[in-house]
Amino acid sequence: MAGSATFDDHPSKLLKVGKGFSLKALDPDSTPGYAGEKPDGEELLDRLDDKLARLQEQLFAESRFGGTKRILLVLQAMDTAGKGGIVTHVMGAMNPHGVQLKSFKAPTQAEKSYDFLWRIEKEVPASGMVGVFDRSHYEDVLIHRVHRWASPEELERRYRAINEFEARQTGAGTKIVKVMLHISRDEQKARLLARLDDPAKLWKYSGGDLKERAFWADYMDAYQKAFDKTSTELAPWHVVPANKKWYARIAVQQLLLEALESLKLQWPVPDLDVDMERELVLRS
Amino acid sequence: MAGSATFDDHPSKLLKVGKGFSLKALDPDSTPGYAGEKPDGEELLDRLDDKLARLQEQLFAESRFGGTKRILLVLQAMDTAGKGGIVTHVMGAMNPHGVQLKSFKAPTQAEKSYDFLWRIEKEVPASGMVGVFDRSHYEDVLIHRVHRWASPEELERRYRAINEFEARQTGAGTKIVKVMLHISRDEQKARLLARLDDPAKLWKYSGGDLKERAFWADYMDAYQKAFDKTSTELAPWHVVPANKKWYARIAVQQLLLEALESLKLQWPVPDLDVDMERELVLRS
Repeated sequence: MAGSATFDDHPSKLLKVGKGFSLKALDPDSTPGYAGEKPDGEELLDRLDDKLARLQEQLFAESRFGGTKRILLVLQAMDTAGKGGIVTHVMGAMNPHGVQLKSFKAPTQAEKSYDFLWRIEKEVPASGMVGVFDRSHYEDVLIHRVHRWASPEELERRYRAINEFEARQTGAGTKIVKVMLHISRDEQKARLLARLDDPAKLWKYSGGDLKERAFWADYMDAYQKAFDKTSTELAPWHVVPANKKWYARIAVQQLLLEALESLKLQWPVPDLDVDMERELVLRS
Repeated sequence: MAGSATFDDHPSKLLKVGKGFSLKALDPDSTPGYAGEKPDGEELLDRLDDKLARLQEQLFAESRFGGTKRILLVLQAMDTAGKGGIVTHVMGAMNPHGVQLKSFKAPTQAEKSYDFLWRIEKEVPASGMVGVFDRSHYEDVLIHRVHRWASPEELERRYRAINEFEARQTGAGTKIVKVMLHISRDEQKARLLARLDDPAKLWKYSGGDLKERAFWADYMDAYQKAFDKTSTELAPWHVVPANKKWYARIAVQQLLLEALESLKLQWPVPDLDVDMERELVLRS
């Protein structure tokens, strides 16, 4: 284990969006709290898989006995930032039975006919689950702000509605972990080029990515504004530098570990006479 | 790689339920086609994770461009046989976005009011997905036969309905992989005792398991009958000896690899001018 350096402080603290946070000031190449290199990081990710899986199983187990705790990981990012890799390489350690994953695409005509939170409410995780939103209700204050699909007044209403929605979820037992994966504009260019050059990645390339890329600065403003308005005590944002994929993965893994640990999970003790049951099994 | 022995023949052939198959004659301790031991098997499982993930991604990618292929893994077994471990340790390698997992519990009152396939039809995998049924429509010819909840005539109707249902799925592009994990009665006893003795497993213990255990021989008969009636050319059954968990996992992994390979998957080639797109990215 000598090789796999550990974090020298809690990512939940280091990466948290607090008062005065500036997205512009954060270097997407940096690795806050972690002095190791890529091989160390990969080893750490591997090493903590079992711990993450055990905590998730405890969460699931509690819910079978009436527990209402659950996790909701909200993932937001510019295209190519690595949301998919987080889902595969971090969430992949968990039992799929306990993971409730939802990708939010552009809303359908029917979804648009409702309030923006309508389709979100239907996907909140059940008790005992680790829910993951791959994109989320934040699109309604990000792309909508960038392209002015919503008025400034409507955006203000939405920030308030989001805080109220998230407070309700928290009240129902949900620990919300909000993560923005932060890449640089140059890194996105390199990743788009890589998609074009690799037959195994070409299918992921979309001209639409290029279109949104043209609004980079507006997106950064929209993220900053969303952080200012919705990074609350109950549901703070975390910005994870993501130019180094391996760092983003260990950072999100740590955030999930910390979130699960904060729930003080216990193995449930079913109401049964273990000695009697053992005897029955032995005689069976 | 020297340590991780490979299979000396295709599990899809070795484990397939063909004419004259006898469940009684199959040793749950055996490891057909595999001469390695536990550490070799664990290494093999690890080593093939990436291949499995890549094939699954190709399946998913094809569907984004109109492909209709998909996989449906049907898992059946006596309690404690290790279905959960298959889901975590074999399916866990895949991108969760491409996995559609459904656990079928005892049907609700509402579900019971329909034909037995009604709730199943709603859960068939979408194109591009690897669907997993953790229990399935086979419960309706297994537990229902054991406890005589269905008459012999009704059971015959169900076997026919299942074959017709599965043929329709195959016609829609679904490759069906049906797996029974086969443990011995003694192994189940040991695993039930282990649940009672481990605080991390106790929550999984259910008195109901013991009740069904009392009908072991009837279950084996019901499985044999289901195999006789529904192991078809299009959707054959495979019986995987499962007293050794590590063997069951590599065997199911192989069955999935073979199923995916049989689909002759290709990376899709989107209809775009790659050189022009590259130029646009470079200028962006």
